[in-house]
Order: sequence, then C-alpha cells, then structure tokens
Amino acid sequence: MTSIDRLVRDLNLVRKQSPLVHNITNYVAMNNSANALLAVGASPVMAHSTDEAAEMAGIASSLVINIGTLDAGWVSAMLIAGKTALERQIPVIFDPVGAGATAYRSQVCTQIIEECKPSIIRGNASEIIALFNAGAKTKGVDSTNASEDALNPAKALARESGSTVVVSGETDYITDGITVETVKNGNPMMARVTGMGCTASAIVGAFAAVNPNRLEAATHAMFVMGIAGETAAGYSKGNGTLQVNFLDMLFNLDEEIIRKQIRL
Amino acid sequence: MTSIDRLVRDLNLVRKQSPLVHNITNYVAMNNSANALLAVGASPVMAHSTDEAAEMAGIASSLVINIGTLDAGWVSAMLIAGKTALERQIPVIFDPVGAGATAYRSQVCTQIIEECKPSIIRGNASEIIALFNAGAKTKGVDSTNASEDALNPAKALARESGSTVVVSGETDYITDGITVETVKNGNPMMARVTGMGCTASAIVGAFAAVNPNRLEAATHAMFVMGIAGETAAGYSKGNGTLQVNFLDMLFNLDEEIIRKQIRL
Amino acid sequence: MTSIDRLVRDLNLVRKQSPLVHNITNYVAMNNSANALLAVGASPVMAHSTDEAAEMAGIASSLVINIGTLDAGWVSAMLIAGKTALERQIPVIFDPVGAGATAYRSQVCTQIIEECKPSIIRGNASEIIALFNAGAKTKGVDSTNASEDALNPAKALARESGSTVVVSGETDYITDGITVETVKNGNPMMARVTGMGCTASAIVGAFAAVNPNRLEAATHAMFVMGIAGETAAGYSKGNGTLQVNFLDMLFNLDEEIIRKQIRL
Repeated sequence: MTSIDRLVRDLNLVRKQSPLVHNITNYVAMNNSANALLAVGASPVMAHSTDEAAEMAGIASSLVINIGTLDAGWVSAMLIAGKTALERQIPVIFDPVGAGATAYRSQVCTQIIEECKPSIIRGNASEIIALFNAGAKTKGVDSTNASEDALNPAKALARESGSTVVVSGETDYITDGITVETVKNGNPMMARVTGMGCTASAIVGAFAAVNPNRLEAATHAMFVMGIAGETAAGYSKGNGTLQVNFLDMLFNLDEEIIRKQIRL
Repeated sequence: MTSIDRLVRDLNLVRKQSPLVHNITNYVAMNNSANALLAVGASPVMAHSTDEAAEMAGIASSLVINIGTLDAGWVSAMLIAGKTALERQIPVIFDPVGAGATAYRSQVCTQIIEECKPSIIRGNASEIIALFNAGAKTKGVDSTNASEDALNPAKALARESGSTVVVSGETDYITDGITVETVKNGNPMMARVTGMGCTASAIVGAFAAVNPNRLEAATHAMFVMGIAGETAAGYSKGNGTLQVNFLDMLFNLDEEIIRKQIRL
Repeated sequence: MTSIDRLVRDLNLVRKQSPLVHNITNYVAMNNSANALLAVGASPVMAHSTDEAAEMAGIASSLVINIGTLDAGWVSAMLIAGKTALERQIPVIFDPVGAGATAYRSQVCTQIIEECKPSIIRGNASEIIALFNAGAKTKGVDSTNASEDALNPAKALARESGSTVVVSGETDYITDGITVETVKNGNPMMARVTGMGCTASAIVGAFAAVNPNRLEAATHAMFVMGIAGETAAGYSKGNGTLQVNFLDMLFNLDEEIIRKQIRL
C-alpha cells in the first residue's frame, strides 16, 4: 500500500470503529476538539473528575491529555487517567500547551511525561524546545519559533522520552527520534483559530486509536488536519469562518479530496 | 387551541417573558446552550459556585442541571441549586450525560433524581436505559441505542421518578409514564454537533419556564429543536456550519416556519 | 493626529506588538475571547491556576479579569494575578459579569476593585449601576437598563475607584469620571451573542496593552467592537452567523473599513 492508501485506510477505520477518545483538555478548545472528533468520525468524551478518570480511561480507545488550562485538581485526574491508559496499553497523546511559560507548566510536563509515558507528544516549536531544554522560555501559548528550529530538539526528546514527537508549524515534523516525516499541508490562518493545535492533538488521538504504528498514525492525523485546514482556508474570510469551515471539511473529507489536496 | 397554536403561543411567551434560565452545565456545551437560549429569546445564566447556587436558583424561572463534565464541587452546587428550585417549585430539567459510562455518573444521577426531583429528564436512549437499569453500560456520551429501545424504560422511569422523560433520537419520545408524545422533526447530522442534546435540555428549560404543563413544554421544546435543526441541516455542509445555522434558525423561528416544517 | 488616526495607530500597534493578554475569564466566553484577540492581532493566554497566576501575569502585557463563572478557587487566582499586574503597572481590565445578581458576586466585585485597582472596568448598564449602588438588583447577566441610565453612576464609580469605566449598550459610554467619550457603532443583535460583552473586555485588554491612555485605549477598543459587530450584523441572519462573521470582520478590520463605518 502506498502512503496515501494507508492514510485513507486509517480515516475509514476511524469512521467505521468510531473509537472513544477520552479527552482531559482545556476549556478553550473543548468544544472545537469534540466537534472535530465527531466530524472525523470518532466519539469524544470529556471527563476530568478524579472520581471517574480511571474508569473512563478504562473504556476508551485512546487518551488525550492537554494542559492548556491546567490546575492541581485536573493534573491529578490527568495522572490517574494517564497511568490507567499506560497499564491498558492504549495510546496516550500529550499536548504540552504553554510548556516553558511558567515553572508550574514545565514541572507538570515533566511529571506527565515521566509517569504516563505518552505514546505521542504534540506541540508547537516553542513548546517542544521548552520540553527539551527546561531553561527555554516561551511567550504564552503561541509559538515564537519556526517549526524547523524544533526539529533537532524534537528528535532528541523522542529518543529520551520514547514518545513519537510532533512539531506543528508551517511544516509539521513527526519523529520517533530516527525517522522524520513531514507534512506541508496547512495554512497560516490556522494559527489564528484558537485551539487548532489542541484539535490536532485530539485528531492524533483518533488515529492512534486505530493504528498502532505511532509515527504513521500521527502523520496521518497531521495530514488530515493540514488538508482540511488548507482547503477550508481557501474559502474562509477570517478565523471565524475558518473554524466552522474546517469542521465541515473534516466532516466531508474523503479519498478524492485527499488525493487532490495532499502535498507530498 | 390546536397543538401547533399552543407551540407558537409558548415560543411567543419565551420571547415576551425572556425567562432567566439558570444552567449548571458542562464546559463543552456552555457556549452553545447560552447562544441557543438567547436565540430563542430566553436569558441564560451559567453559575456553579456553591457560594451563589441557591441565590441564583432563587431568582431563576427554571434550572437546568447537566452532568457532562461533572466533578465533586459542581455536584454540590447542582444539589444546592436543585433543592432550592424544588422548594420554589420552579422546574428542574436534568440531563444525565453519560449515565452508565462510569459508576460515579450513575451514582450522581441517582442522587440528583432523588434529592432534586427533576420535573423533566432528557437524555439519549442509552442514558435513559442506563437510568432505568442501573446495570446497563453506555459507551461514553454518544448513544448506542435507537430511541425506540428506550421507550418502555422511559415510561417506567417516568412513573418511578415522577419526572416527565424525554428520549432524544431519530424520533423523540416525551412521556409522563402514561401519555407518549413523539417528535419526528430532526436530522441525523445533529448528533454530530457536540452538545446538541445539552442544548435541547436548555431549550426545554426555557419552555418549562413559561408552561407549567411539563409534557407539553418538553414536547414544544423538542419540536423547536427538531424544526430548527432539520431546517438548518438542509443548507449546512457539515457539523461546523450546522452549529451556526441552527442558532440562526432558532433566532428566526416563527409561526410560518413552524407550520411549514412541522411533521405531525 | 485626529481621533481616527489614533484609533488606526492603536490597531496597527496591536497587530505589530501582538501583546500577550492574560485572561482569567468565564467558561462561556473563553473560546470567543481568545479568537477575538487572535483576530485583532493579540496573543491570548487563559490561565487560572493559583500555582501560576502570578508568573503568567508577570509576563503579560495586560490582564483581563472576568467573573462570569466565578468560584472561590478562581477568585483566589484573580486576586493573585491582579495584584501582580498592579505591582508591575500593567493594565488590569475588570468585567463584573452579573454584579448585583447575587451577594457573592457583589462582594467579589468590591474585593477585586479594592485590591487590584483595575485600570478599566467594563460592564453593561445594570452591572455598572449595581457596582455603584450596592443595593441595586440585576437579573442574571443581561442588562435590564439602558446604557444612558448608567452614565451618572459610571462617572461616580470612575471618580471613586480611580478606574476608567465603560458602559456597553446601544451607545457605549467611556469615562474617567470627568470626560465622557461615546461610541455609537454597534447593532442590537450583538446582545444576542453570548459573551459579546466579555469579548469587548478582552479587546479593551489588547488596546490597553499598547496605549497607556486608558480613556483612549478603551474608546478605541469599543469602536473596534462596534464597527466589526455592526458591519458583520449587516450580513448575518442570526446570532450564530454573527458570532462567526464578527470574528472575520475583526480579522480584516483596516483603516478603510474604519473610516467608512465609524459614526462620530
């Protein structure tokens, strides 16, 4: 099978299996992430209580942990769910939003990576650099680095942590520490839609639920994000319509659109 | 008055009285629920602090409790507000999101139904079956049952709890345990918009605030949801535009559209 | 420079500097506020943990505190961040959502104003009247007063608190207690989009970050809100499309549109 065939196969698997993706994510991106998962064919659940985190992770096909609006109670639930997922060997996707912006975020990132051993880490360039280099400072949650600056840090982080690492940006890089895949689809306007990166992590969760090859699953998810976002941006006048049109494109994405739009 | 006349009367009452609907609901659906209440003419307030739950329920015309993203602190506020509403004899609408998915959700559902005695319970088929049969397992928050499977459980639940029970699905069933009303308007794409069921519960809250006949209020609300959703789906390309167009349709809904679109 | 020139200058400064605006805001409006800040060119961050509130406010260019869905934990973080901002002399914008609706909200408002000394307070007429007159009762979070009713209370509140006060409504009033600026742009449909006032406060945060003249910064922000909202309402069929089109208009706002649409 060619690479496009495998991408289409995974998209169809998501639609057929409708995997339950357990998200412990931030308030800003919850609605978009849930809608994106529904659009692509998965079944999202958002649940953050320590009273049910283990049980919910126990019935899910993958777990997405996103620290965008973290606090102590939520971090407890993330760790409970993450350890349950690790025991069950379902994929854990970790989105280190704002890593490096505050000491607290950096400390929580270290703890989650150590204790939950995420299968896949997805962040922007500044976040991945901050994870690799605890001394790096980021400005809030938007990247101030180009994605290529983070390629070597991403490879090193992947080797150290054992996670597949995704750097989102103009070009997305996906690496297990040795192999590097690139995704060039996308549009700069996507960075102006809040939570678009968080949504990418959620979609990675859907693909990781149906394909045990992490590098491939993450790459397929980033192609789906890039193709849907780039195509939707083509007829969107701003970040308002882009958010909406992006969901519609995910909803309607099929082999024909993929073959037409993919940039290899 | 015919049934359509009473539906139009209630819609006009919501717009005229603009009842204050107090929502203690989930993070995913808050924005949509608030916009839907504003679109239909009601005045939404979201407030979950135990420091004000009683006082806010004390000035509201109805209370909507939704456990989508529950945790212990929020459940405390739900119980405080619910008991205040019960004392004041304003309607309590309960949305048992994900009932049956975890033991915690099932336990909280039992407690809310016992202590707050909701006037109306609205859920999907899997949730209503889970409420009726504590042993039933649901998968996350999306229904895996057809709505007709839940009709008998809904009737039994209504008789046991004293609540009017709404089962959302391809056909909506509304029952007080004896009479069963059905609403056939709607579109399958609505299930792909996150929080659409939660929004239905909020709209039920608006109609219950202006009509003391619970069976009628809930039926009118489900017709409004179904007609707006079905009409909007007719010109929406995916779940992104549907979410937006649905709000516009609620905003513009009037007697003419209702008479043209209603399926009796 | 004329007033329009200074407005355009500030808009361009926001886009050039992309100031980091730290928001501790409500669940309903978070997504919209973040998207509006991104649309206008600022960089939003939402962070409410007491474990990082001081550090995040320490790297921000302005702080927006909004009590829409307050609870005790969040109020602690608001006070920590607010005091940090005060020490650093970065602008604090305070949005007293639902002030007067419950005793708890009124008490928290008093505490925030006293301890954080906000540079700018923005609310609807009912909220500003409630802040001025602790005895006034509001109904939920929607205004039941016309904005002109709040003009004298706003002036008195500005003089007492030392804050610039913005009253949103059909006409917006912006006052430091002596001078009063008015903004007549806008459209009534904006009040039917949930969180539109909260978004205004966030945009005030962006302009206050680039212009130390509070009266001018707040006035410019309200013009930007009014022009984008009014223009978008012109081609929106309801509150669903208005929310989306409003973001697009903010995204595309430029000198030409401002000169064409501004009502002086």
